[in-house]
Amino acid sequence: MGFPTLFFWDYNKLRIKEKAGMKLTTVKEIYRNKETFLDKEITVGGWVRSVRDSKTFGFIVLHDGTFFETLQIVYHDQMENFAEISKLNVGAAIVVKGTLVATPQAKQPFEIQATEIEVEGMSAPDYPLQKKRHSLEYLRTITHLRPRTNTFQAVFRVRSLTAYAIHRFFQERGFVYVNTPLITGSDCEGAGEMFRVTTLDPVNPPLKEDRTVDYGQDFFGKETNLTVSGQLNGETYAQAFRNIYTFGPTFRAENSNTTRHAAEFWMIEPECAFADLQDNMDLAEAMLKYVISYVLENAPEEMNFFNSFIDKGLLDRLNHVLNSEFGHVTYTEAVEILEKNNDKFDFKVYWGCDLQTEHERYLTEQVFKKPVFVTDYPKEIKAFYMKLNEDGKTVAAMDCLVPGIGEIIGGSQREDDYDKLKKRMDELGLKPEDYDFYMDLRKYGSTRHSGYGLGFERCVMYLTGMSNIRDVIPFPRTVKNCDL
Amino acid sequence: MGFPTLFFWDYNKLRIKEKAGMKLTTVKEIYRNKETFLDKEITVGGWVRSVRDSKTFGFIVLHDGTFFETLQIVYHDQMENFAEISKLNVGAAIVVKGTLVATPQAKQPFEIQATEIEVEGMSAPDYPLQKKRHSLEYLRTITHLRPRTNTFQAVFRVRSLTAYAIHRFFQERGFVYVNTPLITGSDCEGAGEMFRVTTLDPVNPPLKEDRTVDYGQDFFGKETNLTVSGQLNGETYAQAFRNIYTFGPTFRAENSNTTRHAAEFWMIEPECAFADLQDNMDLAEAMLKYVISYVLENAPEEMNFFNSFIDKGLLDRLNHVLNSEFGHVTYTEAVEILEKNNDKFDFKVYWGCDLQTEHERYLTEQVFKKPVFVTDYPKEIKAFYMKLNEDGKTVAAMDCLVPGIGEIIGGSQREDDYDKLKKRMDELGLKPEDYDFYMDLRKYGSTRHSGYGLGFERCVMYLTGMSNIRDVIPFPRTVKNCDL
Repeated sequence: MGFPTLFFWDYNKLRIKEKAGMKLTTVKEIYRNKETFLDKEITVGGWVRSVRDSKTFGFIVLHDGTFFETLQIVYHDQMENFAEISKLNVGAAIVVKGTLVATPQAKQPFEIQATEIEVEGMSAPDYPLQKKRHSLEYLRTITHLRPRTNTFQAVFRVRSLTAYAIHRFFQERGFVYVNTPLITGSDCEGAGEMFRVTTLDPVNPPLKEDRTVDYGQDFFGKETNLTVSGQLNGETYAQAFRNIYTFGPTFRAENSNTTRHAAEFWMIEPECAFADLQDNMDLAEAMLKYVISYVLENAPEEMNFFNSFIDKGLLDRLNHVLNSEFGHVTYTEAVEILEKNNDKFDFKVYWGCDLQTEHERYLTEQVFKKPVFVTDYPKEIKAFYMKLNEDGKTVAAMDCLVPGIGEIIGGSQREDDYDKLKKRMDELGLKPEDYDFYMDLRKYGSTRHSGYGLGFERCVMYLTGMSNIRDVIPFPRTVKNCDL
Repeated sequence: MGFPTLFFWDYNKLRIKEKAGMKLTTVKEIYRNKETFLDKEITVGGWVRSVRDSKTFGFIVLHDGTFFETLQIVYHDQMENFAEISKLNVGAAIVVKGTLVATPQAKQPFEIQATEIEVEGMSAPDYPLQKKRHSLEYLRTITHLRPRTNTFQAVFRVRSLTAYAIHRFFQERGFVYVNTPLITGSDCEGAGEMFRVTTLDPVNPPLKEDRTVDYGQDFFGKETNLTVSGQLNGETYAQAFRNIYTFGPTFRAENSNTTRHAAEFWMIEPECAFADLQDNMDLAEAMLKYVISYVLENAPEEMNFFNSFIDKGLLDRLNHVLNSEFGHVTYTEAVEILEKNNDKFDFKVYWGCDLQTEHERYLTEQVFKKPVFVTDYPKEIKAFYMKLNEDGKTVAAMDCLVPGIGEIIGGSQREDDYDKLKKRMDELGLKPEDYDFYMDLRKYGSTRHSGYGLGFERCVMYLTGMSNIRDVIPFPRTVKNCDL
């Protein structure tokens, strides 16, 4: 190819220099590579979970944030600050020097026999996290401290690993990550209530002659809102890079105070050119399995915690998903099945109705007993951009339903025919001038193409068994709630 | 440890099934694994860059979005649709079946001898991207089509790889990715003008008796804005997980129309407990080197393109960074050096002044001739949360300066002493009630801790040599500009 030679530098050999604070051994390293550290002197830093002392020695349970499990420290009255240590409150930060020794008879596999303990930061007696169980409701009132608890250590580590697994999945397959904009000039999808973004004077905004706001004087020179989806922008990049994905925040100003809705949440939206509905479903299935697998492998302690204390059937359910070929059923077939069981539902099913969570769960849990894709929904209950099927009544949509949740992914093949798309937009009264860029994609090298949306928080709820979206978002934003 | 046995499923073996569109061989696969495909029949799909025909055969230059380079297609008049193909416009989408053959005599290493070409989507004659050079200014007016050009193929693939390299760097080191909130209840940092987020009636907002807006009736029950930094939220998680990073959008409503400022951009903000300023600098240096290295290794064609057509010295400059130990200098020392060269600067340097880009570039390009950290700035020109040094005059801040740009990273050790932080906030007139959560971190297990911020777009500009921030953001938002 005749490139000038590039200098390649082995980035895998990069190591942060061993200096100062960084030379603290982490609890994760100790658990994962016990042999390396046994009978050696090491230094660890972390926060006190509990202190228990007798006259001449004591025990500290230390958590350092790098690992779900704790480390036991034994200390003795030879230390100058023995009394100070024995009085430490829960939450105090300490740095401990000592020897790691195996404790084959004890509950924990090893402990540190400390020679020095330095108190880095005391913890005031009114520390809100004492050594007892706190309710999730109470912990929501202290979002800045709750990540120090077992439950939220597990939740937010799994959230982080899930995000990374998603990036890995797409990057390994050559997908281009696209940052679609947060502030948008129009509600292109009509997907829901939007937040207005403005710098105008809130009391006396400039008005036009007709007494409406003169957004020409606003920061962007037009009315702007927070995005509800990056899909339409994403499509423009799929028509350039073939396979792309977005992963960013989206917003809904809906006044719904439920356990499943937040005003600010993250979405993943892949989009593929030269891909039909079947390709789309294959991609979604592969992605879900990859993410589940990655989290089980990289957070076994956390996942066992959820399985034991949050949601007893969790691991069985996730492993079952890994081992299933996902089912496929058309909406029409699904409605036939559900209609026969209408006595079981609050909302009775008929062709043309939108499926409720109770129907979705019945299909995936009782009928298929595994994840299932429902395809080809009536066009009236789906978005304007979905590809019209040959029957003229249904569109090439797909929802992926999983046991325990119902819908976790929604997607479609997109209408790639200029005239059909134009007709559908006219039927729905959409303004063509808002969609010039979108129509251009059908005018200049249109391809069959498909994509889907995965609500990131719903995915984390699914993986952890947590039942309230407020408990899987570090600082949740919901109606009348915007703390910190 | 006595866990219930987890079922581990080998996620690396996951393959998207070979069906429909997905079985198209990508141009990337062909270039990277030529031998696998030579003399075999394959199918590719992509967009036409040019068509050149004679009477009995023709050539198509095809780009499929998966790879920077193009693929040559040879077609013959045996094909039924020979005439249709010869008339294809730039931008048309086609699917080509044929045999890959080596062309050792030709400019390109191989070509496809086509047996079938299916036109998937025509391209209208008014296609805005014809086979000629378009100015970056013009391309900014068609943000939905510009990713189809060489320059923006290169820019946005490198942007995607850079984002992934950053995630990889932190995840490999056990950092927890934290999504700090976008909508915030207060301007905690005072870092700049903010966008208001609201659902109130824009013309007749509810007013209180004093004629100010009654934000109690707004969506969140209070005045809310778009975040300017996730740092303070990030610190709460560092005090729980030890090492965390954020990577998300931030906003500035500043009325500055420059090549370096956008209203919406992405930031990376790592934060580490038990880490001092030196640890912080070591982390920043390792991260920059990792990211440069990753991009050079994974986008050699794109990086060579930038080096040839955008910024001639780019590769030398980046390789030099990889091979340098970054320099270190205090602000006070740097000012002494700069004062001796004040004749060279528009803004004259004196102790206490903020350093301008001209000073920063002089330091890194002329004095150190490599990246350099400037540390220990006067407290007056830095943020309230930075740790006061023992001299009482300077704070433990650090800016990382790189040749060609100036400041690329800014960070500090944080003030971890409750009383000192309180005193500084009082001096600056900050309202304590806005910072209760932040003070709690100093009250319950405070640790020495540090972090920094990296502007993602500035990093992409640095890696690509692109000189306008509008050209490294897919859909840029700047003053009076919010297209698509």
